[in-house]
Amino acid sequence: MEFLTGVKQKETVGIQEILEGDYEGKTVKIHGAVHNIRDMGDVAFVILRRREGLLQCVYEEGKTDFALKDLKEESAVEVTGVISAEERAPQGFELHLSEIRVLSEPAEVMPLAIHKWKMNTSLETKLALRPVSLRNVRERAKFKLQEGIVRGFREFLFGQGFTEIRTPKIVSRGAEGGANVFKLNYFNKRAELGQSPQFYKQTMVGVYDRVFEAAPVFRAEKHNTTRHLNEYISLDFEMGYIDGFEDVMAMETGFLQYTMKLLEQDYQKELKLLGVTLPVIERIPQVRFDRAKELVSEKYNRKIRNPFDLEPEEEMLIGRYFKEEYDSDFVFVTHYPSKKRPFYAMDDPEDSRFTLSFDLLYKGLEITTGGQRIHDYAAILEKMAKRGMDPEDIRDYLMIFKYGMPPHGGLGIGLERLTMRLLDEQNVRETTLFPRDVTRLEP
Amino acid sequence: MEFLTGVKQKETVGIQEILEGDYEGKTVKIHGAVHNIRDMGDVAFVILRRREGLLQCVYEEGKTDFALKDLKEESAVEVTGVISAEERAPQGFELHLSEIRVLSEPAEVMPLAIHKWKMNTSLETKLALRPVSLRNVRERAKFKLQEGIVRGFREFLFGQGFTEIRTPKIVSRGAEGGANVFKLNYFNKRAELGQSPQFYKQTMVGVYDRVFEAAPVFRAEKHNTTRHLNEYISLDFEMGYIDGFEDVMAMETGFLQYTMKLLEQDYQKELKLLGVTLPVIERIPQVRFDRAKELVSEKYNRKIRNPFDLEPEEEMLIGRYFKEEYDSDFVFVTHYPSKKRPFYAMDDPEDSRFTLSFDLLYKGLEITTGGQRIHDYAAILEKMAKRGMDPEDIRDYLMIFKYGMPPHGGLGIGLERLTMRLLDEQNVRETTLFPRDVTRLEP
Repeated sequence: MEFLTGVKQKETVGIQEILEGDYEGKTVKIHGAVHNIRDMGDVAFVILRRREGLLQCVYEEGKTDFALKDLKEESAVEVTGVISAEERAPQGFELHLSEIRVLSEPAEVMPLAIHKWKMNTSLETKLALRPVSLRNVRERAKFKLQEGIVRGFREFLFGQGFTEIRTPKIVSRGAEGGANVFKLNYFNKRAELGQSPQFYKQTMVGVYDRVFEAAPVFRAEKHNTTRHLNEYISLDFEMGYIDGFEDVMAMETGFLQYTMKLLEQDYQKELKLLGVTLPVIERIPQVRFDRAKELVSEKYNRKIRNPFDLEPEEEMLIGRYFKEEYDSDFVFVTHYPSKKRPFYAMDDPEDSRFTLSFDLLYKGLEITTGGQRIHDYAAILEKMAKRGMDPEDIRDYLMIFKYGMPPHGGLGIGLERLTMRLLDEQNVRETTLFPRDVTRLEP
Repeated sequence: MEFLTGVKQKETVGIQEILEGDYEGKTVKIHGAVHNIRDMGDVAFVILRRREGLLQCVYEEGKTDFALKDLKEESAVEVTGVISAEERAPQGFELHLSEIRVLSEPAEVMPLAIHKWKMNTSLETKLALRPVSLRNVRERAKFKLQEGIVRGFREFLFGQGFTEIRTPKIVSRGAEGGANVFKLNYFNKRAELGQSPQFYKQTMVGVYDRVFEAAPVFRAEKHNTTRHLNEYISLDFEMGYIDGFEDVMAMETGFLQYTMKLLEQDYQKELKLLGVTLPVIERIPQVRFDRAKELVSEKYNRKIRNPFDLEPEEEMLIGRYFKEEYDSDFVFVTHYPSKKRPFYAMDDPEDSRFTLSFDLLYKGLEITTGGQRIHDYAAILEKMAKRGMDPEDIRDYLMIFKYGMPPHGGLGIGLERLTMRLLDEQNVRETTLFPRDVTRLEP
């Protein structure tokens, strides 16, 4: 009988091992993809692409039994050679090739120059060729940073006593209602794809007090803009026993502070590759919705057309205002009009035309919506009645209020938008692995 | 201008703080839900439920201004009182109440006794009342352990150089094809819900060498059994530069070993609540599919009816065999018949009727399917042709082979099934937060 006893030790080494060990002058075996071959005549540089970065290998005529002309870019190889320090090489060392073993070969030549620093191609082309354009080291660095943001979210919230949950995406009814839902037939029942884990995360506050989820949400919006996606990752949290919605904003501020530190510490390589300067987040200003409109109207000489909504241009100007006046990339806009918020939002007891809610703008783009929720059964029934909603439609959700819920609130952060702003990209598709939009269902 | 500067310090304390600090004889403020009230006459025990556990509060007539009869179970409260050691209390201390502030009250009395150790009710009822039945401390402990399993998966794989990815769930075509897909209308295009992130995770091996994802998958299977769900969480990983599919099984063994240690270390409370004994995983036997059938047939005197498939009962017996003969709860069954595996599975070069693939059985239940994948463009085209598949249908996926892929393999683990076996539950719905099955779309 054969047995598996755990992760296998391999003969091959990794870049980190070489950087941390004493490998100078020693022969090692390492694998990778042939990212680029630069033939200089007597000598050639074979650049291997590995998860940790690029590795410069030196091919000298007659020193390996493998003919350079037989080596193809994007082949997977295992190479053997001697390590020597070389400060001009990407890792500070290079490998002098003695053997090359080809593990697999491509059938065709790559359709775009992924080994170039910048691919100099349109977003359209990059997306159409996404499965291979992501092999470019700058492209992949974006999604490594995105990984870091989600790690930051989880690690920070675990530290604050939150529990991670996983809620269903096929639902009988979306949390926000309206026409923007994808419908499907679920064994002859009418079902929808979840627009938000709202109902479920509130439910779980009754169970664990504080919960979070990082998962896809689906919106059948027909907007085809640079900031809309029809499927995106929502970083959601919900917390009980709050004194007010300020507790939720304070928690988000803590998350951003923690995450920027984490990125600085663990994702230095990617930050350098992309030339990203992390924002300093010591304090984030908060301003009322109506006040923000006034400030922008005064300073930029702009008429307030609709007192109950923020136009994208107004959001941009609010962002600009707080950058100019307070040197902050972020601003919390609070007290959104009740009619613009879902029924579960808590109205401001001082003026029920407004809610105890907020958006977080990052460089003028909404990246978060959050607020305090109604927790009282009678209050939520009353608000639903005002809106002509039938309690029977969401009976299971209403159960949590009927049997008692603490005061609570929470938020949802659009991961791809946050990444887009952090990287100063102009289109959210640049920071979405495989975007779904009105015209794009593949790859 | 007001600013948010980070997480707010609160006046209230938590159970952990009290356990770790010097609070004996001191007055503290703490919040929670009134889990249970036990009135003994002159004295009453008010049990608060918090995320960390239950807290025993002592109500003595005349020592608080709040009348006990006005206090309702499932109210959210903030209480003030003096801490004193009490070894019979759940946390080893109790709180002598002086003030009770009610933050919110339920509208009705709880429909089932969630404060009971065991709720003594049917699974049907528990699921129908899921939003509140989860408040039972044993119910919620199950999903805390599930959180731990996912943490183990991520932490272990991060340590092994894997990158976390997030792939789209709305897809043009599922990875496994067949009739078991949920279809939806995507802006007048035919779309499906992803049965597996298979194509995308293989794609990302070309980018990061090693990747993982923990996300929902959707299967429109009509089976209504104790082990099937129509939406579940799949723990997926995929790794490049493997020497064979044994590398994948070794990695999974490492994950299980790591995770059991993590649970033992960080989830002791939940393990005790549920009486779970963690399996010892030093070595996991591996056995060929055809050999496993023979072994079971011989030992349990059972006829082999279908040499190309494993019946659920046969899986149970294989589990039993390896428990009896090798004292192992786990067994890797390898070399599944090619006709039972998807087209992307690599056939065994020594006998192409079988594949370089495996299932992991845990106490006789399949919890993982994995194996080596085809990486060569010509080879995958050839296998598709044999099955009458049109390459044009999955052109974007095939792009990765055309332009070069390393040898690679991976697996998918059913999170709810793994949790079910770990907890010795008899129905996968017991370990699914909000299950989706043929008849269940709510809550």
